[in-house]
Amino acid sequence: MSEKILVVGGVALGPKAACRCKRLMPDADVTLVDENSYISYGGCGIPYYVSGEVQNLDDLRATPYHTIRDAAFFRDMKGVAVRDQTRALRIDRDAKTLRVKDLKSGAEEDLPYDKLVLATGARPRVPDIEGKDLDNVLSLTRLEAAQSIRTACQEGKVAEAVIVGGGFIGLEAAVALADMWGVAVSVVEMTDQLLPGALSVSLARMAAHDCQSHKVAVHTAEKVLRLEGVNGAVSAVVTDKRRIPAQLVIFAAGFLPNGQLAKDAGLAVTPSGAVVVDEQMRTTDPCIFAGGDCASVKNLLTGKPGYLPLGSMANRQGRVIGTNLAGGQAVFPGYVGTWAVKLFDLSFCGVGMTVDRARQEGFDALSVSVEQLDRAHFYPEKSMMSLELVVDRASRRVLGMQGACVDSASLKARVDAVAAALQYARPTVADISNLEVAYAPPFASAMDVVNVVANVADNALAGRFTPVGADQFMKLWAERDSNQIFFIDARPAAGGKAVQEKHPLWHSIPLEETAARIGEIPTDRPVAIICNTGLRAYDSLLILARNGITDVVNATGGMQAVIKMGLEP
Amino acid sequence: MSEKILVVGGVALGPKAACRCKRLMPDADVTLVDENSYISYGGCGIPYYVSGEVQNLDDLRATPYHTIRDAAFFRDMKGVAVRDQTRALRIDRDAKTLRVKDLKSGAEEDLPYDKLVLATGARPRVPDIEGKDLDNVLSLTRLEAAQSIRTACQEGKVAEAVIVGGGFIGLEAAVALADMWGVAVSVVEMTDQLLPGALSVSLARMAAHDCQSHKVAVHTAEKVLRLEGVNGAVSAVVTDKRRIPAQLVIFAAGFLPNGQLAKDAGLAVTPSGAVVVDEQMRTTDPCIFAGGDCASVKNLLTGKPGYLPLGSMANRQGRVIGTNLAGGQAVFPGYVGTWAVKLFDLSFCGVGMTVDRARQEGFDALSVSVEQLDRAHFYPEKSMMSLELVVDRASRRVLGMQGACVDSASLKARVDAVAAALQYARPTVADISNLEVAYAPPFASAMDVVNVVANVADNALAGRFTPVGADQFMKLWAERDSNQIFFIDARPAAGGKAVQEKHPLWHSIPLEETAARIGEIPTDRPVAIICNTGLRAYDSLLILARNGITDVVNATGGMQAVIKMGLEP
Repeated sequence: MSEKILVVGGVALGPKAACRCKRLMPDADVTLVDENSYISYGGCGIPYYVSGEVQNLDDLRATPYHTIRDAAFFRDMKGVAVRDQTRALRIDRDAKTLRVKDLKSGAEEDLPYDKLVLATGARPRVPDIEGKDLDNVLSLTRLEAAQSIRTACQEGKVAEAVIVGGGFIGLEAAVALADMWGVAVSVVEMTDQLLPGALSVSLARMAAHDCQSHKVAVHTAEKVLRLEGVNGAVSAVVTDKRRIPAQLVIFAAGFLPNGQLAKDAGLAVTPSGAVVVDEQMRTTDPCIFAGGDCASVKNLLTGKPGYLPLGSMANRQGRVIGTNLAGGQAVFPGYVGTWAVKLFDLSFCGVGMTVDRARQEGFDALSVSVEQLDRAHFYPEKSMMSLELVVDRASRRVLGMQGACVDSASLKARVDAVAAALQYARPTVADISNLEVAYAPPFASAMDVVNVVANVADNALAGRFTPVGADQFMKLWAERDSNQIFFIDARPAAGGKAVQEKHPLWHSIPLEETAARIGEIPTDRPVAIICNTGLRAYDSLLILARNGITDVVNATGGMQAVIKMGLEP
Repeated sequence: MSEKILVVGGVALGPKAACRCKRLMPDADVTLVDENSYISYGGCGIPYYVSGEVQNLDDLRATPYHTIRDAAFFRDMKGVAVRDQTRALRIDRDAKTLRVKDLKSGAEEDLPYDKLVLATGARPRVPDIEGKDLDNVLSLTRLEAAQSIRTACQEGKVAEAVIVGGGFIGLEAAVALADMWGVAVSVVEMTDQLLPGALSVSLARMAAHDCQSHKVAVHTAEKVLRLEGVNGAVSAVVTDKRRIPAQLVIFAAGFLPNGQLAKDAGLAVTPSGAVVVDEQMRTTDPCIFAGGDCASVKNLLTGKPGYLPLGSMANRQGRVIGTNLAGGQAVFPGYVGTWAVKLFDLSFCGVGMTVDRARQEGFDALSVSVEQLDRAHFYPEKSMMSLELVVDRASRRVLGMQGACVDSASLKARVDAVAAALQYARPTVADISNLEVAYAPPFASAMDVVNVVANVADNALAGRFTPVGADQFMKLWAERDSNQIFFIDARPAAGGKAVQEKHPLWHSIPLEETAARIGEIPTDRPVAIICNTGLRAYDSLLILARNGITDVVNATGGMQAVIKMGLEP
């Protein structure tokens, strides 16, 4: 008798697990159950459908070879049965049945299973505020919502939109609406920075500046109190600081795992409701697997249960579950937390912990930043890359890296290399200093930016210099009347002098003139040095050190970072 | 008394080691000795100077902040003394002195050292053939040669050029001359493929096709016998197969390490003359370090001494030596062999062993190839990427990966991630199936190409399908009169039918029609399936398998790979 496999949830992990299992075990009777009519779609593509970059909604439902992944596709091509518009109500683990309800007919029935997969996904976190049920208040998780937003934009009905939440999806939505439809977008974020948890405050400033430069208003440390409506449709968002007119509100304040079905069946779930699974993606019932956005998997850096609802996680976990459904022993060890998001001019990408997160986890964490070209400086095509490396002081262990660059693939290359190291080892600063990456001038620098950021960390940990972020440098500059710091701009005269003319306390002492003009630098006051990227400032610091001037801080990232943050002297 | 550090060789590793040491040990007396007048230049940039992409020769000698790295720079900015045009003659290890000769005055002298660094680099391998000393027969290692080639091109004196050697530098030179100066370039390579040792025969076909599509003649399995000259300048190259007129000949047939100084001093060198060093980059004399192109370091995949003369290796090793000169304990563990080269339309990049190299090393190696978009298939900006994964059958250990893509950074991202895994672990196929890489639709696919190539290897190792490369498929097709294979094109009708009209034995059976038309497929003959990238062919194979047709091979990479190789049915 063929084994009965039931899969609840048909978006990403479910179809993957079902098809993989059927491939390995062709005799299996595999059925996919989903309460919606659209299944197996690229949910991560929704912002690009809203923007119009993805032309048709069907493109998000198609295979790379342009066949729509509907019930007929799974039946004919994959041998997997699909029951769409069918809701899973409860699991009877003793009887090994799943109670389902056909949403068209209302009929209920018990489906028997030998193995069950829970791929129930997650739901958007919607704050319980007045007006949340008004028309045109949406989340970006379902194709239907995507369609209605795009239609509203196309019909010119959205002049102003508010995004609640400055995380990945919120910012992707902001870009889609502002860049492609010219909508006046405001992002309201409760914490004091964009992409909280993913970026340091410094890198988040660059993200905010990129948004603001493209007419997206960014309101951080601000809370949405209620939504106002006219004739049942949203008309404004009221925060604790302002009232923002809006014909569209998108909730992008994170996700909650759909773990209720598992919990009701007595399976272990985390306090936040995510299904607990082992390395083989089995729940506490060995006949029931779970994965994707409804499950908790191990954070390999902290060793603790974690949650990372990403399509890439779901796909890889789905294959593991499919293998194990068919009697295999595949393992999903956990995650190190890679992510990526493309904003307007800049892409951001990272892995592991930010410096703040690392401190919350109890590490004595330090982060250093660099600005360096992604390819040989003499090669004509290249982009300036910002990288920030997070390390533990005592152990010199690398805990994470985040960055920003115009060239998204180039940034991804550095992050993915460090991510791989983090997956297979506990790399130290020295390991990343020596990380071997593919080199030729059109690809990298001979001393690549990913090696350099570790070298900078090494020098900072050894106390060879005191790095400050470009934003911290500008804060010191703003407080110059009280802190007695002597500010040096080590750029060539053209750069430094221009500022010096406006601000006489901004001293232009180009690197090349530093030795000769050493007498101009006071020895009884702290010194702060900035240049274009941080390199000249470091060489300037070495000259100062050789002359006995050691109370010096250096702006890592230099004016490049200052400008990306939207600051100016 | 300050410690005396002597560094022989001032191109890449030497200056890095000298400056790092001086930085950590400011009291040290650090001197750099080089027999040339140009020091500290980006030798890897020479092809880009020849092409004109790098405008001025000085750009290769400048810091990223545009200061020329000459003797004065090292003295004033770094506190390092430079004795250029000074040749190191011999080391007296007992006296701890280096005999040097000033090439301007002819005077010799003994320089005392406490620690010595050998950064003597490598010299181009020049075949000992008639005519090798004619004018306009050059290697691409020195700035002077670069200048004379570019001048000759600018003056229109080079209509035809021959590159001897189809490795990295040979192809970079070919691109520089053909693409930018319109020179008719012929590449003559002794082995039967371009980039031998770096690429499989299949990927090398793509490299050759890229060259040939840009009017570079590629002559593999061909040996240069002699050069002919007129008035002392080269006029033609005579190979074992033809005579090629040429006003310029570039030798790019590899490098030989300059280990003689070390060998003469009784230090251990490898049979090929590379200086033997330990993990701290010390030679067999603990007071003498060596690194860069003159030294042998460990190949981490084979565990054997290896040789990888790359600027990136030299820079990272230089820092390690600098640290250790100052009393540190830095380590350079070895290399996994990453490389990258940009040709015309395509970039190539890889790590570790090719399938042929792996077999030479005694592995029972298998390689599988895929063609997949580098980003979400629904995202508008994307490139098709070819990846080939090399694995050991029994252990499932990953031994290397190579690829080709228009987007060089995107390809680098996949290679560097695998390279990092290879540096810190012995990843298996399952590890790369699960490799976590940064995902969002503008960066990757939810099931990224690097995961997919491992999934394909997994399926091939399990005997779930029999992959053949696109070139092997085309060979089977060429032999169709004798092998009785039934050929299926699983693309949509438009693609397959067009070929079928020309070749009735090329059967267009689109994936969607396969189940319905199963009766057309013979059950008593082998079947070979191709499609656009390999995906449809795999789904088609599953349908055949469910219908009992199992003697099937699939063309991985599909017509995308066929076209990149310059083949056609």
